[in-house]
Amino acid sequence: MKELVDLNADAGESFGRWRLGDDGALLPQVTSVNVACGWHAGDPATMRDSVELARDNGVALGAHPGFPDLAGFGRRAIAFSPREAADACLYQYGALRGFADAARTPVTHVKPHGALYGLTIREPDVARAVAEAVGSVDEELVVMLHAGSPAESAASSGARVAREAFADLDYGDDGRVVIEPEPQEKDPHKCADQAAAILRGQVTTISGGTVDIDADTICVHGDRPNAAAVARAVRARFAEEGVAVAPVRDVLAARRG
Amino acid sequence: MKELVDLNADAGESFGRWRLGDDGALLPQVTSVNVACGWHAGDPATMRDSVELARDNGVALGAHPGFPDLAGFGRRAIAFSPREAADACLYQYGALRGFADAARTPVTHVKPHGALYGLTIREPDVARAVAEAVGSVDEELVVMLHAGSPAESAASSGARVAREAFADLDYGDDGRVVIEPEPQEKDPHKCADQAAAILRGQVTTISGGTVDIDADTICVHGDRPNAAAVARAVRARFAEEGVAVAPVRDVLAARRG
Amino acid sequence: MKELVDLNADAGESFGRWRLGDDGALLPQVTSVNVACGWHAGDPATMRDSVELARDNGVALGAHPGFPDLAGFGRRAIAFSPREAADACLYQYGALRGFADAARTPVTHVKPHGALYGLTIREPDVARAVAEAVGSVDEELVVMLHAGSPAESAASSGARVAREAFADLDYGDDGRVVIEPEPQEKDPHKCADQAAAILRGQVTTISGGTVDIDADTICVHGDRPNAAAVARAVRARFAEEGVAVAPVRDVLAARRG
Amino acid sequence: MKELVDLNADAGESFGRWRLGDDGALLPQVTSVNVACGWHAGDPATMRDSVELARDNGVALGAHPGFPDLAGFGRRAIAFSPREAADACLYQYGALRGFADAARTPVTHVKPHGALYGLTIREPDVARAVAEAVGSVDEELVVMLHAGSPAESAASSGARVAREAFADLDYGDDGRVVIEPEPQEKDPHKCADQAAAILRGQVTTISGGTVDIDADTICVHGDRPNAAAVARAVRARFAEEGVAVAPVRDVLAARRG
Repeated sequence: MKELVDLNADAGESFGRWRLGDDGALLPQVTSVNVACGWHAGDPATMRDSVELARDNGVALGAHPGFPDLAGFGRRAIAFSPREAADACLYQYGALRGFADAARTPVTHVKPHGALYGLTIREPDVARAVAEAVGSVDEELVVMLHAGSPAESAASSGARVAREAFADLDYGDDGRVVIEPEPQEKDPHKCADQAAAILRGQVTTISGGTVDIDADTICVHGDRPNAAAVARAVRARFAEEGVAVAPVRDVLAARRG
Repeated sequence: MKELVDLNADAGESFGRWRLGDDGALLPQVTSVNVACGWHAGDPATMRDSVELARDNGVALGAHPGFPDLAGFGRRAIAFSPREAADACLYQYGALRGFADAARTPVTHVKPHGALYGLTIREPDVARAVAEAVGSVDEELVVMLHAGSPAESAASSGARVAREAFADLDYGDDGRVVIEPEPQEKDPHKCADQAAAILRGQVTTISGGTVDIDADTICVHGDRPNAAAVARAVRARFAEEGVAVAPVRDVLAARRG
Repeated sequence: MKELVDLNADAGESFGRWRLGDDGALLPQVTSVNVACGWHAGDPATMRDSVELARDNGVALGAHPGFPDLAGFGRRAIAFSPREAADACLYQYGALRGFADAARTPVTHVKPHGALYGLTIREPDVARAVAEAVGSVDEELVVMLHAGSPAESAASSGARVAREAFADLDYGDDGRVVIEPEPQEKDPHKCADQAAAILRGQVTTISGGTVDIDADTICVHGDRPNAAAVARAVRARFAEEGVAVAPVRDVLAARRG
Repeated sequence: MKELVDLNADAGESFGRWRLGDDGALLPQVTSVNVACGWHAGDPATMRDSVELARDNGVALGAHPGFPDLAGFGRRAIAFSPREAADACLYQYGALRGFADAARTPVTHVKPHGALYGLTIREPDVARAVAEAVGSVDEELVVMLHAGSPAESAASSGARVAREAFADLDYGDDGRVVIEPEPQEKDPHKCADQAAAILRGQVTTISGGTVDIDADTICVHGDRPNAAAVARAVRARFAEEGVAVAPVRDVLAARRG
């Protein structure tokens, strides 16, 4: 069992007139948050609010860049080249950085969203290009990619890479997460079970098999209707099992020893 | 006659498949450049190219945030509140910053574009909010606003304010620039005359009157068909008249003594 | 007291991942519905669903074109020329028409949304241009504009004009509606009172005065949290007072006698 | 050798401040035109102008729906479901229909653009869904799909299907066109050769082989720098070879006998 892990959630996914998620309830449960940057969700006012909410909750603030597809919430793949994917991450990271600088709080990490995250899983060149872009900005900036081959693709990029796994998504037998178009309620205890299993190094797949996994950070989706309850259950389980939680940079620093 | 001035131009105004402006010819003529940030023009690839072009030409790199209106090129006013205007500037400044950080070159200034610039002329609260946002990011960051009341509105904002005037736009008798929806060719010599007059402290209005003006930086529009020729003529005139040119932060530093 | 009136509501204002309004509860209460067309709200899937919902409820289907401003929900004015406003209405009307044709149901009317509606109130040239565009498409197509000068501006346009008033918005002493950025719950009985007053020919203003009004159709906003309750109360009041309701074209036909 | 064929071109691909193509020179050379509808190119004013230009040149007017990707000009594939693709075509067809109705001219056909066209080639379900959507609107409306399996997939849809081939694109050995991200100048005579070969029933592939093809309409891309010269050369070759040209509906009517 790992002794230290980051618990991250997506947030700031409202847009204009439309509200999504209950970030006020969710953020106190996590140690890192990934804020939508206006391409798949999030608008400037929401980004400003999210930055201030993260800062005020002492949660590590990250950018959550997605495909330019508000209507599809960034969950429809777009055939971006590695360079287009990297540029999309730089643009959206920067946009969030504007609000973070104004709020005098750092952006600590970048985690691609939805189908862009999926592209980093399917295409190693995209994972590498995104990681190189993140590394080019600032050597302290962390890129979150899925544990296993996506994170490994980024190893030579110069960026700090956090290996991620999901408490609230199913895993296929190929070890890949199954991304839902629109998350439904999930049993918080089952998510907590999955998170604990991941920390023991294995996740159960949809067919009942297991795959090995080695993760620095565990994710809960902010647009799941009971996201805060899921995060609370995961965190409670960590406490029961004696796992400490900390923002992603601290987890990576501890790993490096 | 002033002895030192910044010469700035808008650039990076292509978008995707569509090209606009000849930045390669224009940038060697100016000392500061304002790069479109994706809301009224400019896409990530164009922004990356523009950042590298500015860096390689030794030109000070600025953000040129506009209204979110690609179809209108940011030249149709949108009823933004002061806070919405400030957020728009933070978002777009940041987006450019992403590419600038990756290219290891600083963003030195922010200049609103088109109708957003017009709003800072008509509404002092907007000028102030934009300047405060710029000042909140970084005390070195300069906001360019029109000389006179817009720049004065920003005086208490904490931001460094560069006072701007236009070599290539007409002035009304109220001292306000007349913004063309789509710039046409202009006689470079007349633009040079107007730039020289501004440095002497006065600009001639469309009705033949004069208004006083005190400017730190002179602008040439990058989407004017003969923009590079206009910039070249203005710069040649400055040389003839013994006016030195320098990036905007150097001009402000010299002004402060 | 009028004997016949149309009761209209805005609907189809969800967008992608984000839901807004309870159209299933609202549509059975009204006789005409105005469906968002993708510029300020509404996406193709939502439009298709809204068209089918209107058809299945026997409610007259209208287009609800707005400014191209998803982040502002079309409630921030954009400085459109009369021709740009007319083109925006043609584009969005047509887009809805695509789904209506596929569902074998007609589009009976066009009603501008939010700040675009506001522009038809402030600028007679815009009201006229929008009405002319509507009239150019089809002589049966109705344009809904506010009762009084906006509707009068359209009189010479060749379009059929329905004069509208609002059950759920405040009126200023100038007879103009006060458009809320984000509608809040309202007392359904007070809205019913206002609707009944309008049918008697007068509306009370925010300062307690009255202004004359002559309306063919009464609107309830679909994005008000208790929209369906407001519509139900208005409709019940009409029943009590012996006012019949009918889709907007029938009301205009009866008026023409 | 076929005796009758339609010659179609894409047009209306300017957007706002940005110009693309020389539609005034191109349209007199073709018998059908496909007008961009605002998602990948084209804005309302451009659409209105294009509709009037088509009408005034006696060219059959079609909608050219693309993916919602201005920055990528609709040439990056987006993972649309068949229904999303069909809805995209209905929306954009309708939008053009608004301007066509206002100009009292019919929309005769719908041809997907770029990567959306590519999706109808790779996914028979998308070809079928698009064709069914077109057929649901109006039994006279023609859908243009690539000759061979895409057009065959649509056979049971109820829509009239025009089988298309390209004068100015390379063909792979699998009989599929190679879509360029950004068309370059091409030798007009070689394009004319390819068009003539297609009318004889065969096209030469990039490796020097041949594939059979049976086409009702031949396309020239409007955003190729020398598009008008290519169209002129193709048309001249048709004249030399005794092939008549006619708008797409006439060609289909002749085929049906």
